[in-house]
This record gives sequence, C-alpha cells and structure tokens, in this order.
Amino acid sequence: MTIGVAVLGSTGSIGRSTLQVLSRQRERFRVVALTAHSNGDLLAEQAKAWNPAFVGLVNGNGKGDGGRGKGTSCLVEAATHPDVRIVVNGIVGSAGLEATLAALRAGKRVALANKETLVMAGELVAQAARDGGGEIVPVDSEHSAVLQCVAGRRPTELARLILTASGGPFRTWDPERVARATVAEALKHPTWTMGKKITVDSATLVNKALEVIEAHYLFDVAYGDIEVVIHPQSVIHGFAEFVDGSVLAQVGFPTMELPILYALTYPDRVPDQGVRRFDPVAAGTLTFEALQPARFPAYVVGREAARQGGTAPARFNAANEVAVQLFLEEKISFGRIAEIIEKVLGARSRESGVGASLEDVLAADTEARRQAQEVACS
Amino acid sequence: MTIGVAVLGSTGSIGRSTLQVLSRQRERFRVVALTAHSNGDLLAEQAKAWNPAFVGLVNGNGKGDGGRGKGTSCLVEAATHPDVRIVVNGIVGSAGLEATLAALRAGKRVALANKETLVMAGELVAQAARDGGGEIVPVDSEHSAVLQCVAGRRPTELARLILTASGGPFRTWDPERVARATVAEALKHPTWTMGKKITVDSATLVNKALEVIEAHYLFDVAYGDIEVVIHPQSVIHGFAEFVDGSVLAQVGFPTMELPILYALTYPDRVPDQGVRRFDPVAAGTLTFEALQPARFPAYVVGREAARQGGTAPARFNAANEVAVQLFLEEKISFGRIAEIIEKVLGARSRESGVGASLEDVLAADTEARRQAQEVACS
Repeated sequence: MTIGVAVLGSTGSIGRSTLQVLSRQRERFRVVALTAHSNGDLLAEQAKAWNPAFVGLVNGNGKGDGGRGKGTSCLVEAATHPDVRIVVNGIVGSAGLEATLAALRAGKRVALANKETLVMAGELVAQAARDGGGEIVPVDSEHSAVLQCVAGRRPTELARLILTASGGPFRTWDPERVARATVAEALKHPTWTMGKKITVDSATLVNKALEVIEAHYLFDVAYGDIEVVIHPQSVIHGFAEFVDGSVLAQVGFPTMELPILYALTYPDRVPDQGVRRFDPVAAGTLTFEALQPARFPAYVVGREAARQGGTAPARFNAANEVAVQLFLEEKISFGRIAEIIEKVLGARSRESGVGASLEDVLAADTEARRQAQEVACS
Repeated sequence: MTIGVAVLGSTGSIGRSTLQVLSRQRERFRVVALTAHSNGDLLAEQAKAWNPAFVGLVNGNGKGDGGRGKGTSCLVEAATHPDVRIVVNGIVGSAGLEATLAALRAGKRVALANKETLVMAGELVAQAARDGGGEIVPVDSEHSAVLQCVAGRRPTELARLILTASGGPFRTWDPERVARATVAEALKHPTWTMGKKITVDSATLVNKALEVIEAHYLFDVAYGDIEVVIHPQSVIHGFAEFVDGSVLAQVGFPTMELPILYALTYPDRVPDQGVRRFDPVAAGTLTFEALQPARFPAYVVGREAARQGGTAPARFNAANEVAVQLFLEEKISFGRIAEIIEKVLGARSRESGVGASLEDVLAADTEARRQAQEVACS
C-alpha cells in the first residue's frame, strides 16, 4: 500500500523536485493532490502525468489549468484530503501557513519547505500539531541536516546548532556596490538553484534569520544556542552539538531532493539513486568564516525580531516579502530591502507580546506589509 | 548506583585519557579494576587515587607496583571481575585479544581501543559477543565517528563508510626521504598525540588498514564499501553514507576523551565539559586528498590481507608489530617496515582460509612474527 502525498506548490522549485523524487519512489508513494499558484499549463501537465484525486489552482486564468479546486481554499482542501498522509508544503510566502495548520490539525505529516509557517506562527503550529497529532518534518537543507543528526536522540542531548550559510552572491562584494546590486546579480546564487524570492533572501541573509527562527521551533533550542557560520561551498549543511561536546554534521553536494526524500521517509531511509554520490575529494576545500553583521543588516534585524518574539518575526517576514517583491520589480534598490525591514521593525506595532493568536499574527502581517509599502514609497 | 569500569592499560595513552574522563564523571562511573603493562609507579599512583577493587601489573619489577594481580592472566581477571560492567581495553598489541574475548563471554561491554582484537579475530570476537551477551563499542576516533552517525539506525540503511586519515608526518615528503626517516621524525604526528606504536602506524598508514578491517567487523560493511580519504586537519573523523545517498559525519578538534566518553555512555550522551568546544571558523580550512597507494605500500598490503581474510589480517598485524618494534629500536629503517610486512604476507603460511579458530590465529601470529624477524635479519 503506497502512502498518499499532497504537493502544495507543485509547479515551483520544491514542488518540481518533489515530483522528481516521487518518480523514483512510485512503489512507496502516490500523488493524491497537486496545487499550484498560477502556472496552470505545467499543473495540467503534472496532473496528466500523476493523475491525482485532487488538483487545485489558486490563481488560475481559467484556461488550460485543469484545476478542479480554485482559490486559496484549495490549499486547505488538498492538505486535508482523506487519502493524504504527507503534505509537502512548497508554497512560497505566508500563504502556506493556513494549509500547514489545517494539515497538522488533520493529523498529517507536513514536509515543510515553507519557511513562513514557523516564522509567523511557531507556537500556533506546535499547538496545532499537538491538537491533531500531526507532525512537521523540515525540507530545508539546513534543518534536514540537523534533523538527520539528532534523529532518534533525546531532545535533552542537543546542546547547540550551527547552521551554515553560503553567504550568497555578495559575500565578498564591497558593501556600497551591494547596495546597488541588480536583480540579475542578486539571483546568481553561488551554490543553489532556487526560486527567485528565496534566492534574494539568501543574498540578504534574511533566509538565514528565518531559518534560525524555524530551528528554534523545530528543535526547541534557545536562540543563544543557534549560531550561523558562513560556509561558501554549501557542502556541510548543518552541525548539531550534543551535551558531551560531540558534533555531527550532514554533508553532501547541494540538492533539495535529499531533504525532500528524507522528509517523506523519516525516520527511515530508503534506497535512492537520485543524489550525486558524495566524494570529499571532489568537494574540494571547505572553508568557514564568521558572519560579519555589518555586511548583512537585514539578518541582524531578523535575529533581533526572533529575540523579541510575539508577532515580531511575522512582521519581519512580512516586511521582507514586500521589500523583496519591490526589488524584484526593480522598484527599489537592493540596499533598501534591509532599510525597509529595519524601519518597519522599528515602528510601533499594535501587538508584540508572546502568546499571539492567529488573528494577532495575521493582523501584524497585514500591518507590516502596509508599513513596508509606506516606507518604500517615502 | 555507579557503573563499574575496568581500565586495561591504565598507564598508557588511552588509559590515562580514560581516567581523565572518569574524573569528570564520578557520579556515573567508578573504577573497579586497573591493569598496566610495566609502569608500576604510575599504576600505584592511580590505584591510590581511585582505590579500585582489583589492580594488576602484567610485567612488574616487584617494587612500587602496588599490584595484587600479576602476569597476563590479570588482564582476564580484571576484564571479568563481577563488579565490572564496562571494560576499557587500551592495551597495545595482540595481548588485548584474550581479555576482549573473556569480557564479551562474561557479558561485559568492551570499550575497544585495542585494534588488534578485531583485526586478528573479528569473527571470533563477534561469536564471543553472541555467546556471552557482551558488546563492543569502539573507542577509536574514526569508528566512534561512524558509530555516532549510525547509532539507532537499522544496519541495512548504511551504504558506505569513508574513514579519514591525517596522512601522518610524511604525507608530503619525498618517498625516498621517507624511507630514511628517523624515529623522532616518525613520532611527530601532525594532529594527534598518541602512543609510539600507533604513531608509527599512522606514518605508514598501517593504522588505517587496521581500521578498515575493524570497521568491516564493527559495522558489517563489505571492504569494497569502506574508503579512506586523506584529511590532514583531522577535524572530520569519519563519514557514513546511507542508502538514500545522504552522508553524516562526526567533527571536532582531535581528542580521544570524546570517543572514550561516548563508548562509556553509548547510546546515550551525558553532559561533559572536558572537550574543547567545536568552532568551524577556528577549525580553519578543511581539505581532502585521494590516498596515493604508492606512498603507503604497507597500507596496500593491509587492504589485500583484509580481502584475503582468514588469518591474513592477523599475520599482517603481527609482521607490522615486529617491524615497528625493530624500527623504534633503530634496528631497521622506516622504509623496511613495509618491506618486511610485504614479504611476510607474500610468504607461504600454514593456514589462510576463513573460519580460523583462535588457535589458528595465534599460530599464524607466532609464525608471522618469526618470519618478520627472519626477513628483518636477512
């Protein structure tokens, strides 16, 4: 009996990698649901290839989308489909939150690539998992690395996490030149091929701030025990230090297919030939550099938002989403991304305490987006 | 209730590190037995500090040794003492085999630093563990690294091992110069401080051939799936590749205290402050090089002996012990170590099939020692 999988965001980078993995693992998994944001043509192609019970297009143009579900509600419908046991959430941005919560409440495993879910509502997500018996397994390469290191161990044995960051395309650039970087320059990631938004986030290191927040919730580690180190080769994906001082790491050539497969089969592993075999000699020289805060101001704001807790991480995330979108539309310079986030986080907000409800989080999200637009236009 | 520990070879490098670890973990462990080869003064000092129920000196001079047990039999006596639950076997050379077998048959855990045990009699050791309910937990940094990566996972999930080797002091030397290396030069290990014999073995890479054989028995991995890579910084101690292509590694600054502690507490980990905290930036640049067989002829002979099986690994080990001893006594050149081993392994031997008994192994050991002496003197 195969395990039913829903792929949310099936036409995006994570979604396509997921289907690639599933095509090698057909004897273990079947696709029950596919949803996409707006690429109806590719979705129709995927639906033809996989013949899922449910297909949903969030923002279809009506022709060639082959969708049965429409609008945002189709995400929840796919995520809670009775034949689905694992929901791969590859949705970019805050739209992924509601689907994650619904899936967890319905007792599903969520293979989570959507960073915003935990960043916006880490505590609510944990509560939903407890309520419904669902679980989150990370798909991010960094969190998958940590999970692989700690799998099967008691949480009390974990002492510290060190997440690696490639440092993005601007790691060695002059900061003044970085401020004027073009979209094309920001999208040239040195080691990973990913979607546009996440690639820009890797250039600002906002990505890493979001991952620190995710790691905090995924592994119940205090922020003071989560470090980030620049590792330009992206071969070591994460370190976990245990209470006896020993450190494990997960290593390999960059690929999202491995974290996706592991999230599907966790805690087990299954034979798979899709990943380029690791060879330390071919990996070449591995280097590590301390992260220089002055180079990555948006990252610094993100860590501070994490420390504040409450709705601050949600506001950080929302301000970043708006700023990155404006940058990708070439309406603002690269340097202004960090400025906008900083100003939004510095602005007074309605609520920032702990124990925020989903309504609080969504209100903070909306408010921060408005503030970010205002700051950008001023 | 504390766990009783016997430390065999307590005055050697591993023994002293073990007592260092135990001094920080007194609430969990107590020393029940101590044995040493010939350093009666230090043994007496250790006995005074730890007040063990049993003290044994294998080769005492009668004064100041404080020993109650004498001769080789004291090793077995210590290893099977009823209050002992863990035997740390830090004996150098083939003398450690009998104690390991006795401890396993008595149902003890053997924290094994003695390489010769598994190399000489891997199958007999496995049988003894099955018979008596004992278990082997490796203390070697490389095998401890692998164990930490695979702990709690099903053996069928493991696909390949990559052991790291510093390459020793002669990694970059001209081979002709290496052949004339002095004892002092061979004992200058770049990253580890260890006993003399094992340090010479690191220079010839015989050490790594022995570890490949150990890994084969410890983790039930075919020789074709055990690779060795030169990693001069000794920061990554071993890699384990799983069937899905993912690779875990254990990393850290070189110290034997961590593998010793892990062997005592496995599969759990306990808080310990004795290990220098890992810092990837301080670790510096990590490099990997393919092992060049021409540089390490003794290693090549060792891998061939492993492939042959039966008593060939025991003969390899015995020939090496004799050759290294002669080198340390400055009776032969460094270059002759490999020559002697190669000639002994090439010589006809009484027995080399699989299913060798302990008598076969010991006879092969004796024969190879005699042959090595003959070759050395010819």
